[in-house]
Amino acid sequence: MQTIERMISSSPKRSNAATGLAGCIAACLECAQACVSCADACLSEEQVASLKRCIRINQDCADICETTARVLSRLSEQDPGVIRALLEVCALSCATCGTECHRHGDHHEHCKICSEACRRCEEACRKMIRSIGH
Amino acid sequence: MQTIERMISSSPKRSNAATGLAGCIAACLECAQACVSCADACLSEEQVASLKRCIRINQDCADICETTARVLSRLSEQDPGVIRALLEVCALSCATCGTECHRHGDHHEHCKICSEACRRCEEACRKMIRSIGH
Amino acid sequence: MQTIERMISSSPKRSNAATGLAGCIAACLECAQACVSCADACLSEEQVASLKRCIRINQDCADICETTARVLSRLSEQDPGVIRALLEVCALSCATCGTECHRHGDHHEHCKICSEACRRCEEACRKMIRSIGH
Amino acid sequence: MQTIERMISSSPKRSNAATGLAGCIAACLECAQACVSCADACLSEEQVASLKRCIRINQDCADICETTARVLSRLSEQDPGVIRALLEVCALSCATCGTECHRHGDHHEHCKICSEACRRCEEACRKMIRSIGH
Repeated sequence: MQTIERMISSSPKRSNAATGLAGCIAACLECAQACVSCADACLSEEQVASLKRCIRINQDCADICETTARVLSRLSEQDPGVIRALLEVCALSCATCGTECHRHGDHHEHCKICSEACRRCEEACRKMIRSIGH
Repeated sequence: MQTIERMISSSPKRSNAATGLAGCIAACLECAQACVSCADACLSEEQVASLKRCIRINQDCADICETTARVLSRLSEQDPGVIRALLEVCALSCATCGTECHRHGDHHEHCKICSEACRRCEEACRKMIRSIGH
Repeated sequence: MQTIERMISSSPKRSNAATGLAGCIAACLECAQACVSCADACLSEEQVASLKRCIRINQDCADICETTARVLSRLSEQDPGVIRALLEVCALSCATCGTECHRHGDHHEHCKICSEACRRCEEACRKMIRSIGH
Repeated sequence: MQTIERMISSSPKRSNAATGLAGCIAACLECAQACVSCADACLSEEQVASLKRCIRINQDCADICETTARVLSRLSEQDPGVIRALLEVCALSCATCGTECHRHGDHHEHCKICSEACRRCEEACRKMIRSIGH
């Protein structure tokens, strides 16, 4: 998070809102990693058959969060329309994944931790959408 | 494209619309590769300074198209809301990138080829959105 | 494949070996897509418990093939050491994944098709390594 | 980093070396983000023409570090051969990128910060290679 903020602040296109932006990128990367981990942990559980939906959604959410982190990290020549629409997809994907992981949170600690990372990322994306405006 | 269609048709969750789906995945992968190539070719041009916006948009479009191809390739436990929203972002990103690349198409063959790949991918995404319905 | 070759041939840094390079990139993208599809199809099978290793290896192979396709698509300022080492990893990953998928090929058509894509990609990477030289 | 360690420790396949592993994954993600940021910041500099090699290498390094973070995050059914070879590529890519960014570190703060992230990631990968053994 600290390195992300330093990278953003040292760009010729540095934004006035480096802290908020760095927080959203960090939340996306944290969520992407948690989703990759959770999919793999679910696959390792004996009850894998009951976790199929969780694995599938984790994989999508990881891909979407990674792409969102990359797009947000590029400050040059930004296209607010694409960024806002991508943040909406990311928030939606995190909401879906967070809800699914939460359902298994009592039985699997990895699902619980992942659902928390999803909630944080969803909130960070929604906050970023509001700061971009319309 | 042929391998993609065979993969989709051999899944336990195979869709009735394997050909259309395979075509959209192939268009996303073709566009992602063209965008990575075009960003690198633009960077190699002497007039790189006038191609900064093209390079930036190419990079975003590559990431978004790759993620869209991955999400579309997963047929299990699909979430139509996330898929439709992602296809909208992908179509928007391809439209933006196709327009930017088209502007440089007379001077740079790679921009011309890339703009065509973007147009095909945009169209494939919009067709897929219509087939999903509301 | 045709678009890939046109993109490579229109770069200011175009290689003399555009056809071979385009073939390797196409093989990587085909394999990456097949691996994403196969992991998802395996997850959808009733016998998912016996396909855990296949799913895990498919996921790694998809990520590695995608990254290899991206790095190969960039013709500017190439670093032969990194490219060769990455091609070796990709060939190794495809060999491992092809062998695992082949084991399930009699029972699952998607594993059979994926193992063939892995073999083609492994071969394309090894051919590319030889053409780079030492 | 804390969430990564919790994810690893809550997997059924949790490793005895969760802290070291989480540190390496965190270093890969930090480096990947710094490389995406640095490529974009370089593109925004007036002297972009002198930063072409830096931009190209940053892009490769971002892709390789992201893939390494994903593969390391999967604890099930690990293939030490693929993991070790991938860590070697990642260390090599980070060394190359760190050296290139260091060359521009006096003129561009983003290159300096990125070179430090590359050095940390290279070291983390080499440490992980030693812990895997032969």
